[in-house]
Amino acid sequence: MTEPVEQLDHLVRCGWTPEGAEAAHLPAHALRWLRARTGLAERSTPVAPGSAFPVAASALPDAAREALIAVVGAEHVLLGTAERLGRAGGLSYVDLLRHRGAGELAVPDAVLLPADPDEVRRVVECCAEHGIGIVPFGGGTSVVGGVTALRGECPAVVVLDLMRLDKLVSVDPVSRLATFQAGVVAPEAERLLLSHGLTIGHVPQSFERATIGGFAATRSSGQASAGYGRFEDMVEGVRIATPRGEWRLGVAPASAAGPDLRQLVVGSEGALGVITEVTVRVRPLPTVRRYEGFVLDGWTAGAEAVRILAQARVLADVTRLSDPTETEVALSLAGGWKTAAVRRYLRLRRVGEPCLLILGWEDTSAAVVKTRRAATLRALRGLRMVGLGRAAGEKWRHGRFAGPRQRDALMDLGVCVETLETAAYWSALSELREAVRDALDSALSVAGRVPVVACHISHAYETGASLYFTVLAPRADEDPVGQWAKAKAAACAAIGPLGTITHHHAVGVDHAPYLGNEIGTLGVDVLRAVKDTLDPDWVLNPGKLV
Amino acid sequence: MTEPVEQLDHLVRCGWTPEGAEAAHLPAHALRWLRARTGLAERSTPVAPGSAFPVAASALPDAAREALIAVVGAEHVLLGTAERLGRAGGLSYVDLLRHRGAGELAVPDAVLLPADPDEVRRVVECCAEHGIGIVPFGGGTSVVGGVTALRGECPAVVVLDLMRLDKLVSVDPVSRLATFQAGVVAPEAERLLLSHGLTIGHVPQSFERATIGGFAATRSSGQASAGYGRFEDMVEGVRIATPRGEWRLGVAPASAAGPDLRQLVVGSEGALGVITEVTVRVRPLPTVRRYEGFVLDGWTAGAEAVRILAQARVLADVTRLSDPTETEVALSLAGGWKTAAVRRYLRLRRVGEPCLLILGWEDTSAAVVKTRRAATLRALRGLRMVGLGRAAGEKWRHGRFAGPRQRDALMDLGVCVETLETAAYWSALSELREAVRDALDSALSVAGRVPVVACHISHAYETGASLYFTVLAPRADEDPVGQWAKAKAAACAAIGPLGTITHHHAVGVDHAPYLGNEIGTLGVDVLRAVKDTLDPDWVLNPGKLV
Repeated sequence: MTEPVEQLDHLVRCGWTPEGAEAAHLPAHALRWLRARTGLAERSTPVAPGSAFPVAASALPDAAREALIAVVGAEHVLLGTAERLGRAGGLSYVDLLRHRGAGELAVPDAVLLPADPDEVRRVVECCAEHGIGIVPFGGGTSVVGGVTALRGECPAVVVLDLMRLDKLVSVDPVSRLATFQAGVVAPEAERLLLSHGLTIGHVPQSFERATIGGFAATRSSGQASAGYGRFEDMVEGVRIATPRGEWRLGVAPASAAGPDLRQLVVGSEGALGVITEVTVRVRPLPTVRRYEGFVLDGWTAGAEAVRILAQARVLADVTRLSDPTETEVALSLAGGWKTAAVRRYLRLRRVGEPCLLILGWEDTSAAVVKTRRAATLRALRGLRMVGLGRAAGEKWRHGRFAGPRQRDALMDLGVCVETLETAAYWSALSELREAVRDALDSALSVAGRVPVVACHISHAYETGASLYFTVLAPRADEDPVGQWAKAKAAACAAIGPLGTITHHHAVGVDHAPYLGNEIGTLGVDVLRAVKDTLDPDWVLNPGKLV
Repeated sequence: MTEPVEQLDHLVRCGWTPEGAEAAHLPAHALRWLRARTGLAERSTPVAPGSAFPVAASALPDAAREALIAVVGAEHVLLGTAERLGRAGGLSYVDLLRHRGAGELAVPDAVLLPADPDEVRRVVECCAEHGIGIVPFGGGTSVVGGVTALRGECPAVVVLDLMRLDKLVSVDPVSRLATFQAGVVAPEAERLLLSHGLTIGHVPQSFERATIGGFAATRSSGQASAGYGRFEDMVEGVRIATPRGEWRLGVAPASAAGPDLRQLVVGSEGALGVITEVTVRVRPLPTVRRYEGFVLDGWTAGAEAVRILAQARVLADVTRLSDPTETEVALSLAGGWKTAAVRRYLRLRRVGEPCLLILGWEDTSAAVVKTRRAATLRALRGLRMVGLGRAAGEKWRHGRFAGPRQRDALMDLGVCVETLETAAYWSALSELREAVRDALDSALSVAGRVPVVACHISHAYETGASLYFTVLAPRADEDPVGQWAKAKAAACAAIGPLGTITHHHAVGVDHAPYLGNEIGTLGVDVLRAVKDTLDPDWVLNPGKLV
């Protein structure tokens, strides 16, 4: 039913499935459910081959090219169509649509592969001197246009691929600190820490491809951030290359020496400097893991459970609540007799609107996991909750990166599939969920058929939580990019008065129009002033953030 | 032996003892110990009366005065010598020396008492228009010159006293948020939350006088920050008055909408704007408290205990380790038969270099306190530790604000008494302690007699901890201000390569020369650019931060 993704003739980043990893494909029952639920018309729309794209010749001026070659060597200034196409944008639905022939790809004029932080600094200075735009590029997993090769006011733009900055620089086991070069991919970072018995514990869905530098640049948050903290909480030090030279920050775990400028670099999205090294707080590698599934009846009860845990400060390291729709999607896509048994069991227990709650604890000691689990469950004693046992938890854990890969298969089938996220204080959270659902429903409904809008809480705090939405709808034949743009705009407008425009996806191009609403005119002016200071010619990541 | 502090003839902030509170005085045995230890020459040097200071007439231009009167009313523009003297500086040792006639007091040209955030905004705009410097003033407890009425390039400077911004604006119990006006004094904030059953839990030594706005402006840290977090962790939203208008930040507990600009405002020390409202995360008021004292043998063992607790994430809400010298000071100043008994007991248990460890747990549930205490003590099982029981813990808790008050008594006696603090990663912490001790020892030694340099860890993190030094030495007869300036410079030079110049006292005037070393030239440029944006005429808190 699904056609295999066509082998591409360029070094491609046209989907979420990592090279060598098994492609996801939808089983027949899942497709049947999807067809019934969304009115999907079956079709096949594979990724277009590189040769299908008319790619303009590199506009990099000769003088700049020669100067860059002098810094990194000719073999690290890539000018070929394939290499340039391979870094044309990130992995949002619209990025992927573009790789399937819809809309225009912004192709960089060259790809640079500097060897180390010093070469990055010299590349940045060289580009600034020649007025060439620079797009810092880690795993290329941005879903908000954060790595789109826009030129801004520059005559040309290069992608600065940090893949060669792949070293673990140092480990301080006493202080639990590890310094990584920015281009280290998350699984490799964990592998490098293995012999030290340490872990970062940062596991966003982009884990398989994203980099340490990217996590810092985007204020990333991981599936286990309840336990390990958001990436911004882990960043102890940063080294940044700017057109005005190198900048290093971080001498102590906490300081009152003025504003925390690390928190200005974290989330700067390559627009204020290129992060070349990050010092992160690390922890002992957990040896004991316990993941379990539970079901609560209805969103209100589910969100209440998570709030109780967050405010009693007994969140499991992974605490993840699916709303009734997302729970339905999970059960429907999984299928099989086990799912049928779960449905029967929940009916028997009179759970009308099942909301799946995944709780996972990790530690080096079974006793600590036991104690922490007991504290979590004790806090929920007053709630009606049905246990699904460890199998449900382990199923989630093993499929934790499947979502993005499944997206490739869904796109092959002509599904409009995208995610968006926000966060708000608890008292506004349910209203925010309704507002975004309503906005997406009405923007994507066709002939009375509403899209599937699933939602979960994956990050909870004492004062509020995140909401993560997954949208499934039949893709519009005409202007599918415009179809999603309209839905996204409606969702952002709904978020505006109630929450943040992004909890962990960053600003990029997509959220830039909404930033002023959130941080005020003065906030935007402040960011522009900081950019003027560090990047006076505005060559860093044109069109992103501000 | 001590003379009572002379009743002042101005609205004074010349010492740490709050109005109406009992003045501390040193018992005879404490004074004997101090004399033996430091070679203190007994004398009496009380606070000078206001009339002893030659205060220049207000230089506030007529036009500015009229404009300010139009905003806040004539009764809220104070021009009298007494009122102006009363806001002449903060409460550092040097500030207090100045109030005793040593060195020059920087006296503001007027004191303004705006009624609310809107009046603050209009005052700020009015001052910017007339080029008048503004020193935002909360509790006036800065120990780094943060509220010194410097004029900078301005012809006149006013103190903007926020005492009338004393309201609890709103409470959101579901989200555990409370919004306060900036001038609410900490005990009053706690009183206002009492009927909601909530607490902020922020208890620095300045608690009795400091304000919510001041906590935010200085990145304050409290004695229970291990449990409640640093103040920067509690700040969810801020409202700031700048010469370019009002700025509001904070819509969600966490966000990836670019850099966290709240963390730029927190620690901005009134130099980027006047904080008028702060939304803080609150928690249920604890009803169960358990404080205990323990003793470890030697600094290394003590610091190791705190590191273990921090890294196992089982710190008590209050976790405070005194080094051998501070432990000696505590025992010597306390005196009495109980102290003698403790000394005997420790000798019996063969504790050579006693280091006092105070652990305190607070919660609404006795069961939770019990569980958390068990987790803390379990983590320390492998260490040799002598329990001193709850009395020692309670003694610390009841005397938690005594330190600053005792300073008044010590100054009366001619003691050079000051504190300074820093923080570093664990692997550098003991080296940092040695370096600062050596620097202070050699700067303050006279004729072979070394000062008392006591140190404690009061804030611990997974990656490092703070060090807080208390210095006692005989005051120099000639130039006591210069005596301390030399010692402070030596300490700052020692801190430079190893830690932060301040963990929770802020930058103010005193640390400004060292900021560039810590955040780099680019960091200072960034702060200046932000100031240029928000305060184009540089009227806000001249001479502080940058």
